Amino acid sequence: MIKASIIGATGYTGVELVRLLLSHPKVKIAALSSVSFLGKPISEVYPSLLSACQMELCDEKEAVEKGDVVFACLPHGMSQEIAAECAAKNKAFIDLGADFRLEKEEDYMQWYKGAFLDKELHKKAVYGLPELFRDSIKKTKIVANPGCYPTSIALALYPALSKGIISTEGIVIDSKSGVTGAGRTPTLNTHFPECNESVSPYKVGTHRHTPEIEQTLSKAAGAPVKVTFVPHLLPVNRGILSTCYAKLKEGAGEEKVREIYEEFYKNEPFVRVLPKDTQAGIKNVKFSNFCDISLNIDSRTGTFIAVSALDNMVKGAAGQAVQNMNILFCFDETAGLTLIPPAF
Amino acid sequence: MIKASIIGATGYTGVELVRLLLSHPKVKIAALSSVSFLGKPISEVYPSLLSACQMELCDEKEAVEKGDVVFACLPHGMSQEIAAECAAKNKAFIDLGADFRLEKEEDYMQWYKGAFLDKELHKKAVYGLPELFRDSIKKTKIVANPGCYPTSIALALYPALSKGIISTEGIVIDSKSGVTGAGRTPTLNTHFPECNESVSPYKVGTHRHTPEIEQTLSKAAGAPVKVTFVPHLLPVNRGILSTCYAKLKEGAGEEKVREIYEEFYKNEPFVRVLPKDTQAGIKNVKFSNFCDISLNIDSRTGTFIAVSALDNMVKGAAGQAVQNMNILFCFDETAGLTLIPPAF
Amino acid sequence: MIKASIIGATGYTGVELVRLLLSHPKVKIAALSSVSFLGKPISEVYPSLLSACQMELCDEKEAVEKGDVVFACLPHGMSQEIAAECAAKNKAFIDLGADFRLEKEEDYMQWYKGAFLDKELHKKAVYGLPELFRDSIKKTKIVANPGCYPTSIALALYPALSKGIISTEGIVIDSKSGVTGAGRTPTLNTHFPECNESVSPYKVGTHRHTPEIEQTLSKAAGAPVKVTFVPHLLPVNRGILSTCYAKLKEGAGEEKVREIYEEFYKNEPFVRVLPKDTQAGIKNVKFSNFCDISLNIDSRTGTFIAVSALDNMVKGAAGQAVQNMNILFCFDETAGLTLIPPAF
Amino acid sequence: MIKASIIGATGYTGVELVRLLLSHPKVKIAALSSVSFLGKPISEVYPSLLSACQMELCDEKEAVEKGDVVFACLPHGMSQEIAAECAAKNKAFIDLGADFRLEKEEDYMQWYKGAFLDKELHKKAVYGLPELFRDSIKKTKIVANPGCYPTSIALALYPALSKGIISTEGIVIDSKSGVTGAGRTPTLNTHFPECNESVSPYKVGTHRHTPEIEQTLSKAAGAPVKVTFVPHLLPVNRGILSTCYAKLKEGAGEEKVREIYEEFYKNEPFVRVLPKDTQAGIKNVKFSNFCDISLNIDSRTGTFIAVSALDNMVKGAAGQAVQNMNILFCFDETAGLTLIPPAF
Repeated sequence: MIKASIIGATGYTGVELVRLLLSHPKVKIAALSSVSFLGKPISEVYPSLLSACQMELCDEKEAVEKGDVVFACLPHGMSQEIAAECAAKNKAFIDLGADFRLEKEEDYMQWYKGAFLDKELHKKAVYGLPELFRDSIKKTKIVANPGCYPTSIALALYPALSKGIISTEGIVIDSKSGVTGAGRTPTLNTHFPECNESVSPYKVGTHRHTPEIEQTLSKAAGAPVKVTFVPHLLPVNRGILSTCYAKLKEGAGEEKVREIYEEFYKNEPFVRVLPKDTQAGIKNVKFSNFCDISLNIDSRTGTFIAVSALDNMVKGAAGQAVQNMNILFCFDETAGLTLIPPAF
Repeated sequence: MIKASIIGATGYTGVELVRLLLSHPKVKIAALSSVSFLGKPISEVYPSLLSACQMELCDEKEAVEKGDVVFACLPHGMSQEIAAECAAKNKAFIDLGADFRLEKEEDYMQWYKGAFLDKELHKKAVYGLPELFRDSIKKTKIVANPGCYPTSIALALYPALSKGIISTEGIVIDSKSGVTGAGRTPTLNTHFPECNESVSPYKVGTHRHTPEIEQTLSKAAGAPVKVTFVPHLLPVNRGILSTCYAKLKEGAGEEKVREIYEEFYKNEPFVRVLPKDTQAGIKNVKFSNFCDISLNIDSRTGTFIAVSALDNMVKGAAGQAVQNMNILFCFDETAGLTLIPPAF
Repeated sequence: MIKASIIGATGYTGVELVRLLLSHPKVKIAALSSVSFLGKPISEVYPSLLSACQMELCDEKEAVEKGDVVFACLPHGMSQEIAAECAAKNKAFIDLGADFRLEKEEDYMQWYKGAFLDKELHKKAVYGLPELFRDSIKKTKIVANPGCYPTSIALALYPALSKGIISTEGIVIDSKSGVTGAGRTPTLNTHFPECNESVSPYKVGTHRHTPEIEQTLSKAAGAPVKVTFVPHLLPVNRGILSTCYAKLKEGAGEEKVREIYEEFYKNEPFVRVLPKDTQAGIKNVKFSNFCDISLNIDSRTGTFIAVSALDNMVKGAAGQAVQNMNILFCFDETAGLTLIPPAF
Repeated sequence: MIKASIIGATGYTGVELVRLLLSHPKVKIAALSSVSFLGKPISEVYPSLLSACQMELCDEKEAVEKGDVVFACLPHGMSQEIAAECAAKNKAFIDLGADFRLEKEEDYMQWYKGAFLDKELHKKAVYGLPELFRDSIKKTKIVANPGCYPTSIALALYPALSKGIISTEGIVIDSKSGVTGAGRTPTLNTHFPECNESVSPYKVGTHRHTPEIEQTLSKAAGAPVKVTFVPHLLPVNRGILSTCYAKLKEGAGEEKVREIYEEFYKNEPFVRVLPKDTQAGIKNVKFSNFCDISLNIDSRTGTFIAVSALDNMVKGAAGQAVQNMNILFCFDETAGLTLIPPAF
């Protein structure tokens, strides 16, 4: 049994991680930290945890001290110093924030207005999308857990780009996310009567996940890829659906495409390439670590349409973090993640 | 005061039309027909209408007989004979179904598997999108009321295509619709626990509204336009949001685009081109005849993104039908349609 | 045409009142005030109002000055001085807050921790539930617009209590309300992921509407009535459903009860006593000024169960305020309120 | 490892049971039967199960044959013969339907219009509410799994009634249920646009769970108890909230009440008596086998108000069935049920 600490345990990704780790066969939660609720039992903040976890919330320092692995669930800009401390103490560090996701400092500066405090540390960090970068993850102790949108998009487009069957130009990604993606702090946009019974786009072409998406897709293509990315807010609690459009190159028909995807993911426990004539939907992946992908070709316009669905809080955040931890500690990659999505 | 009849009054578009006509200053409802509920008061089928409208449901023949204007709210394939009868009796006919929307019989055959029973009649029919084809509507007595998706898409892209600032190739349209778009018949897909807390695409690249969309956009461009169109089912009652992506031609910047749209719609009471930095959302148009359009340019990728929102049951169906009726009878075009969308 | 001002126009009840007054045939909105958004057009705060109302938000003083009738949509404790000013200037004043609803100052002190600043003023105020107190409303210029829960409950139980067919002891009221009842300020409880897909009671036995409910029911019974009142928060935007339980006295059967209610409300345009074997539901009254009441008798236990449904923002707030205004100014009581609830 | 079969596996309670049993450490699913989908893999009926369970649906006979324990998830009236067959073969039988819940045949006749086919068999059946009847369950092989409403109500009121602190007269129960309670067959009432954004009561005073509720409460009181029971349909997928009102007897104050409940449930892993000043809500129990109970006293009216929340599909159906199976087979009672409710 290893000991795990969560920094920022009372945010939505933090508490979801608590839930997952409580059921993990190889992990004991050692500490949960929170600035706002310091000293309170977490079950007072989340009554859903009553009788399941009543651990008192500690400070960040104690959390780092007590964990063999430290998860940070913090707003961007707050993880770099903790990562350095963990590195100094040779602890595994998994960052659910954005600080280590971008490889180029200029991208981080442009999109996040921040700097890399310790460039060497950033070089050690690995982008933790296991299905694509498992081997590198095994060799690091600092994992940058991917964003929710980027996970759904990378899994949907990586096989096609890496096999060169779609054009790298003109990719359009229309994503839809549940409200938990915005976190727990109440705002006007997430006030029930303001988002219920509605849907609208936000940060059109300017969302901070854009460089992260392009970084991975460029690796897939072996050439720079730019995408048009538009996220939308859905009136559901959980889940992301990404509808990804790309120009299909000549010669690539439906069977070929399907073959490529099925081959690419054939050993992946968490990616389900859906059967022909079925479509990915949030309903089928909720509360699980699955990412469903449905493949479509609009032969009238020569367009490849990959649709991916995942739970933004699980495969898009806490579940993927557990998956990364499993890799770091050589556990079975599905340990603690054998969650079956409820039918409703 | 004119007399209006509704055939198929107990479907969702039919009952919405009842609601609108009951408040129309120049119209008296003369007859409501229904096959399933013949002889019952409509308020028994829809208790929301109690004390507002308790008219007994009659048969189709009586409905045609009694109306100066006849609205048909029927599944496709059932309007052609009624239209012929109305034409013979010189009554105005407004079809909320699909039978008269496509100008080319081969398109109708390909997408709807049906034939034009009377080709002359089809020549007389006009596609009733007032903002684009008002002058032709004035001259007909047979109006093909547009589909909900096509209305949202045509209004979003017509100005840009007609001014030649976007490419006619590679247009992608990602639409999201509320569940009322599927009608009142219970199905597994629209069963509450199956669609609540989820979203998924359907009829990817194969939705019957596609040829109707392309017909209008081709007119705008003065050249054939093909689009990739993917509709999605949203867990909301009403509303459509269409996010439309097109390649911006060189030289067309944000100000130019905005100028074109504001000029195009400056006298239109029902189209609101939104201010810079705001986005169209279903919330702001629900229960009204407005179509909101927000304009975006992703300069990183040279993509024009027009987002349109409307109420699928009002501007996307019954409201537009009333607007067409107002045109046919030379009423003020906003008569009975001065509906202000509630804030929530 | 009279001139109306709204103080606190950017809260939920305020903006709903704006929407209703914009369609009122005898009213012109003269001024809208707001502290938070002073100087901005209201359509910037509520984009739903674009092109329908772009009036600039002024201060309270200007609002009082300009109106023949002044509506206050303010938190409790803030209306008394405005009422005094309106009285001094002989303007009609309609308070959508709680300051003038309770007749006894000790009740106000106990439940609201406040005092009556001017006892004479309070004596002039009339509790504005038109179906019960129309004659008194006609004679005042200060109307205390009832709370949303109290309206639904008073209309459900007044006839039975006034006719003496139910016991005044042991009345239980289980009410359920949509989230707009909590106002527009974002809070954790009204944050989308916290209230969506859930329901729970709040302020059990301690809600401030309790004395207001008891005040009206005591008048009905001609004797003191105490009730057990438990409100619940529902994951819907609008609407209140109150399920009211009372011991049926001997001799009062179903037909008698129905007769009493139908007689009591026979001339009321906004109260619909539903047919036997149908039940009140929020769906059928949303966006309208109707209050639906269904009558049930559980003969196994001798219990009378009246269920009432209304839109908390219309008959429970802004619509009833307009109804009161219509009475004060001798307009047709339904003017501006002929809203037909949409079927969905 | 024991072998479990589910008859009627494709209904909502059936598939939820599949989900739970797939994670159970001591159980292997041996067979799943379905009439409608015979021969298909269950993952075709529920794509959420892809890669988790692709078992082919068999017929009832095969299911009985293969299981050490047989669960029946069938409409009432269809379990008696299967129970007899299981009894003959000495297999454990757990009925999620209503056939064995009522002890008196006259009650079954009155409320379900059915007869007890084999009276001896009925005598062997035990009502499977473990917190109340654990000892009897241990001794049977036929378990009548309680209804969802009755579970929530029995747990809320049993302690108070058995300790005699509330009156057995005048009990009022106002319950609210999610839509999955109505099953998977599409109907008008459960069609998304018909139940979304609404709430209404149904089967007022006539719901078939009434005699089952009274049977248990009468045992608690040691005297006949009749209740007024009104269920309501909520626009949520899962969950039941029951607000239970009873006259508090003299001398029983808040502390006493709390003491009784905490004592009563102190060793129960699935019942959480909530801390003072917090309220039960569906959110905190969803997807878990917990039943939360909050205790309130309205001292103004002398009313005890117990509010209970549970997941209708888990503690109200499939979870409780697993709990009963655990008891029958002497497994740890929480095996396969250590589900932590997600925070959102």
